[in-house]
Amino acid sequence: MSMIVDRRNVDFLLYEVFDTQKILSAPIYQNFDRDAVTAILDMAQAIAEDKYFSCSADIDVNEPRFVDGGVLVPSVIKDALAAYAEAGFFAATFSEEWGGMQLPWHIYVQISNLFTCANTSINSYAFLTVANANVINTFGSDAQQALYLPPMLEGRWFGTMCLSEPQAGSSLADIKTKAEPTEDDYYRITGTKMWISGGDQDISENIIHLVLARIPGGPPGVKGISLFIVPKIRVESGRSLGELNNVGLSGLIHKMGNRGTTNTILNFGEGGECRGYLIGEPHKGLQYMFHMMNEARIAVGQGSVMSAQAGYLYSLDYARQRPQGRLPGEKEPSSPQVTIIEHADVKRMLMAQKAYVEGGAALIAYCAQLIDQEKLVTDSTEKKRLALLLEILTPVAKSWPSEFCLEANKLAIQVLGGYGYTREYPVERFYRDNRLNLIHEGTHAIHGIDLLGRKVRMQGGAALSVFLEEISKSVEDGAGYESIAPFASTLQNTITNLIEASEAVLAEDSLRRQLANATIYLDAFGHVVIAWMWLLQSIAATEGLSGNDVVDAHFYEGKLKACRFFFTYELPKTKAQFDLVASLDDTCLNAEATHFIGV
Amino acid sequence: MSMIVDRRNVDFLLYEVFDTQKILSAPIYQNFDRDAVTAILDMAQAIAEDKYFSCSADIDVNEPRFVDGGVLVPSVIKDALAAYAEAGFFAATFSEEWGGMQLPWHIYVQISNLFTCANTSINSYAFLTVANANVINTFGSDAQQALYLPPMLEGRWFGTMCLSEPQAGSSLADIKTKAEPTEDDYYRITGTKMWISGGDQDISENIIHLVLARIPGGPPGVKGISLFIVPKIRVESGRSLGELNNVGLSGLIHKMGNRGTTNTILNFGEGGECRGYLIGEPHKGLQYMFHMMNEARIAVGQGSVMSAQAGYLYSLDYARQRPQGRLPGEKEPSSPQVTIIEHADVKRMLMAQKAYVEGGAALIAYCAQLIDQEKLVTDSTEKKRLALLLEILTPVAKSWPSEFCLEANKLAIQVLGGYGYTREYPVERFYRDNRLNLIHEGTHAIHGIDLLGRKVRMQGGAALSVFLEEISKSVEDGAGYESIAPFASTLQNTITNLIEASEAVLAEDSLRRQLANATIYLDAFGHVVIAWMWLLQSIAATEGLSGNDVVDAHFYEGKLKACRFFFTYELPKTKAQFDLVASLDDTCLNAEATHFIGV
Repeated sequence: MSMIVDRRNVDFLLYEVFDTQKILSAPIYQNFDRDAVTAILDMAQAIAEDKYFSCSADIDVNEPRFVDGGVLVPSVIKDALAAYAEAGFFAATFSEEWGGMQLPWHIYVQISNLFTCANTSINSYAFLTVANANVINTFGSDAQQALYLPPMLEGRWFGTMCLSEPQAGSSLADIKTKAEPTEDDYYRITGTKMWISGGDQDISENIIHLVLARIPGGPPGVKGISLFIVPKIRVESGRSLGELNNVGLSGLIHKMGNRGTTNTILNFGEGGECRGYLIGEPHKGLQYMFHMMNEARIAVGQGSVMSAQAGYLYSLDYARQRPQGRLPGEKEPSSPQVTIIEHADVKRMLMAQKAYVEGGAALIAYCAQLIDQEKLVTDSTEKKRLALLLEILTPVAKSWPSEFCLEANKLAIQVLGGYGYTREYPVERFYRDNRLNLIHEGTHAIHGIDLLGRKVRMQGGAALSVFLEEISKSVEDGAGYESIAPFASTLQNTITNLIEASEAVLAEDSLRRQLANATIYLDAFGHVVIAWMWLLQSIAATEGLSGNDVVDAHFYEGKLKACRFFFTYELPKTKAQFDLVASLDDTCLNAEATHFIGV
Repeated sequence: MSMIVDRRNVDFLLYEVFDTQKILSAPIYQNFDRDAVTAILDMAQAIAEDKYFSCSADIDVNEPRFVDGGVLVPSVIKDALAAYAEAGFFAATFSEEWGGMQLPWHIYVQISNLFTCANTSINSYAFLTVANANVINTFGSDAQQALYLPPMLEGRWFGTMCLSEPQAGSSLADIKTKAEPTEDDYYRITGTKMWISGGDQDISENIIHLVLARIPGGPPGVKGISLFIVPKIRVESGRSLGELNNVGLSGLIHKMGNRGTTNTILNFGEGGECRGYLIGEPHKGLQYMFHMMNEARIAVGQGSVMSAQAGYLYSLDYARQRPQGRLPGEKEPSSPQVTIIEHADVKRMLMAQKAYVEGGAALIAYCAQLIDQEKLVTDSTEKKRLALLLEILTPVAKSWPSEFCLEANKLAIQVLGGYGYTREYPVERFYRDNRLNLIHEGTHAIHGIDLLGRKVRMQGGAALSVFLEEISKSVEDGAGYESIAPFASTLQNTITNLIEASEAVLAEDSLRRQLANATIYLDAFGHVVIAWMWLLQSIAATEGLSGNDVVDAHFYEGKLKACRFFFTYELPKTKAQFDLVASLDDTCLNAEATHFIGV
């Protein structure tokens, strides 16, 4: 079995749970049918296994190093990204006009899954470059697009996003980096950015930073932030590389995991003039950057699912091979040991991983197809509806996997026992890699506040309504199957809890009290969304099983099993959570600093 | 503030929650009063901070190395253990007859907490030596005691426990190491042991291994296992060291955390005769070893609480100093940032850590005083009652902290945000250290089976009855306080759920189905125990607050707050868990290997 993908599950998501054929039937995707998609996935899987997965342990130990003011990145990372570029994946979703493959996002996500699962920290360089190029493609001027996009989409120049500063991580309102206008076409950038992934490396010929900075005289807070293109090396006419642009590397940050991706502190303009080029209008930078951030947030969720998938597949394979112990009641010590997959608790740990990983993967795929659908529909009401649905699902797609797929990684270690705790086996590394995802692109708490403080109440609750409409449709569909009806009914009851909790919060006067338990709400809301994803999968599996000459019965039965697991072991947890949120409990809100140790 | 201990909380546990004065009033502890105990704790804290905490980051990076068939341990580890030995702590609980301090276990645990919190991986060497010496002291012959105890209690010789083998980790019935009788007073040991902590090092003058092995001709399974003393270097008369005893080091195992403790694969008798000395009678080895294992299991729980305490104190200190963001509703971007401890979700994460850490610490202290009480009481019925209580609490004391205090470490990282994910800050290390505790001394699942499959039903449910009696007394006590009565009532309801789930399990015919959800039961049972510990603490805090001229009001209020947190945010989770256990759900039990990915 492959250690990076269950291709049967990819096909199941694409063609049985979601209607990829409909997306592929759009004129702009006329080059692709199912066979073409399969061929692309085959090629991607081969590169991912050969170039990404093979070095994942090595780059954890031999991580990029800070030498003489620059970074030395291991050659295996360069080789991997060169293969990725060679295959054209940097331009996978870009139009043919830019030399792109013009693939739907939905398919791109499945391709990207392969590379992320194989080696999440190498994939980050590509992801950041593509997301950066998307911002330039959407908001940059024609000249900017013409200058930067071709080398980025060829994978020769990489991109970054530079938001945080040492004193302003979660609080973007407090960033201080300055952009002073000059008489030329550029601004003079000065300031320090921190936590910049891929902020320096010796892989690409140039690095294109997207930098949030303040133009003097603008409004304070987030309304006075503008967005700039800041190349590491200045770009002359004809795209030749000129002088260094005074983006200085102060140092590398050494992380617990995800070590192949450099994480940097960058100084802009300390050693001389650093030139930045305004994107769009002044003071609208955060709005533009959110385009990239929303993409990045779903990608964080995706990364989390894939780190967990790596642990799931590895521990599943291990559990099938490792003999240890006997079943309860077996009193004959000379009887042969069973493989550990026979033990009920090992099955539970594998089933929980399956439920988290495949539930999360379904949600990421669902979001990806929403992005395509939103692009394809012409009806403006429907477009708006899809956009609202994506708005409310984005904090969930980012956060739910980073919490529960981390738990999956914890379980993968546990399946291996002592071996799992050693660095000789990969599962502890996947766990370390995944711990990042609760933090970057907005911490878990920030997404709780985003969901309960913003998304649930936006446009008079319109996003929540669309979400409830969609999930109710699935509940209705599920109710039509005898074996699924009980789950549909359970989900309906849980939705009622969700609505009651939401209403109780909105009826509270104090905003601070409303949001005091937003993280609990986020986790419970996420469980409802994943239960929905399992309902959709169980409907598709039931359909699959009802066909003639079913060759995949075990696969479908496994889906039904995992659905049952999620509804029996997981969804009931939300009752206590929604009750707590609805009670507007203020235990934490009113705790004082002196309550913790008495002084 | 100290980063390794809240001494106010130590005093609270010793003198307000539990009745340490009563233990100290026993004749064998006549050398100690509260002042003497405080002086010993002061000395221990000074050594722990100076020698243990100061090098904890260093030994994570520069871990012991395998060089030329031996181990090189960093000198800071040797210095730390020398200071520990110098202070007499190896012999802390041993009688004056052996030159010991003759301290109650209850006090020793508080001392040990300091070293464990400061540096869990250095403390393991001392713990293993003391636990090993306890076995020899309890089951060894007079001659064995006289030979081995003095140098061990002086900290010149260290001890280990050698149970697992490569093919037999959790399944001790399958160990193969052989002990063949000779015509002399020793057996000839051959075999391989794995996962042996401190199995080799260059710190102590000798290493005394306690080895489980089979004498040929004995019964199969665990009933044919005997226990042997196997020195690394043979001990001649007069305790001089002779030849090497052919205990070969095959290699070091490289762990995710806890890196200062060597973890080894040992070959016995491969390079020549390896002599082992039988302890007690043949085939009773596992019974003797359980003496050490039970001690080790509570120590694992203790280690887990202390790794979490290290993260809690660090993240609390950080949260009080780090400015970031503004409170919900504050719309003025030029207003000053607040320290992050002002944010409701940061308070929640700190309160959860407090609830887990101080709840767990109370349980470990409770178990320690049970050990003392059991030793001190003369009435045999009461002795038996206390022993039963300790029996049923041991799997909980081992397992609950390793699950929930690991969660505390996860939250400590989250409080620090990006910084928490870097190796420049210690919280990621505490998390890595703590991940071990779900695995060693019996995995989480094994303790679930121990609790539900053995302890709950032992002697016709006698242990469960004693437990329920004790907790009911506390519920009754709590009901007498107006402010605590609601929690007492909630706990009573949860106990009813626990009893119902237990009865449902016992009414089921199939043993395999009974135990299918034993891990869920373990977690929920543990939450009941910790709720009990919080009830006891809230009673003590209420009493403390009711005094005249209270100087510790914030401390006591914090205790009441954390109790409320546990009862509001945590205990309600058990409802779904007990319901699941009571339903005897077989989703996992009946999952088949092919259900996971369809093949």
